[in-house]
Amino acid sequence: MSQIDETQIRSMLEAWAQAVRDIDMDGILANHTEDMVMFDVPVPLQSRGMDAYRKTWDLFFKYSKGGPDSFNLIEIEISAGDDVAFAHGILGIEQTRLRLTVGLRKQNGQWRIAHEHHSYPQEIG
Amino acid sequence: MSQIDETQIRSMLEAWAQAVRDIDMDGILANHTEDMVMFDVPVPLQSRGMDAYRKTWDLFFKYSKGGPDSFNLIEIEISAGDDVAFAHGILGIEQTRLRLTVGLRKQNGQWRIAHEHHSYPQEIG
Repeated sequence: MSQIDETQIRSMLEAWAQAVRDIDMDGILANHTEDMVMFDVPVPLQSRGMDAYRKTWDLFFKYSKGGPDSFNLIEIEISAGDDVAFAHGILGIEQTRLRLTVGLRKQNGQWRIAHEHHSYPQEIG
Repeated sequence: MSQIDETQIRSMLEAWAQAVRDIDMDGILANHTEDMVMFDVPVPLQSRGMDAYRKTWDLFFKYSKGGPDSFNLIEIEISAGDDVAFAHGILGIEQTRLRLTVGLRKQNGQWRIAHEHHSYPQEIG
């Protein structure tokens, strides 16, 4: 585990969350692999590639106005190797708590998000 | 990326899914880190550690009878570094399609699951 890599990934994820709060689409899309796979809260089951990923955010912003309560990283734990890493944590969106898992690969010395999984737990019974 | 590591992880995940189909709790719990963090389909938001992880399966088996249609890895993509890896894929549970993301760390030469995230996409609108 590398502390430098963990710090780089943490900063990148914080900047990504800030871009969501700012409704800054270029910032949201700035650090992904071209073939990234998204498991978003709403359907579809999965979205593949950056064009499909952008569409998931178009949908998100139909329902969210951004701002300070829209996408806060409340906790995040990062496991980073030399060129593969994953992170999981909890995002605050207004009064709700979203689970986030991210898979990352290092390309040309730069960490890139290759996978995101966003979900809410379901009430049962 | 190491092909050997990818093969080891794929085999381990296939064995884990088979253990779910067999309702074999020892098999399900055989390859995790002690501090693993689970994001399951139902509440709670997250479960930490192997005692809490086991409880998520007790709950699952209240609703599932195991068998061939209960937990099939339909597709899986693995990114493996030297000692950190992640995988994402789709599981078939009867007629439903579940998204699965797994984070792994290598401990004493053995890949261990340190994180699981299971979810269904939500219908909206």
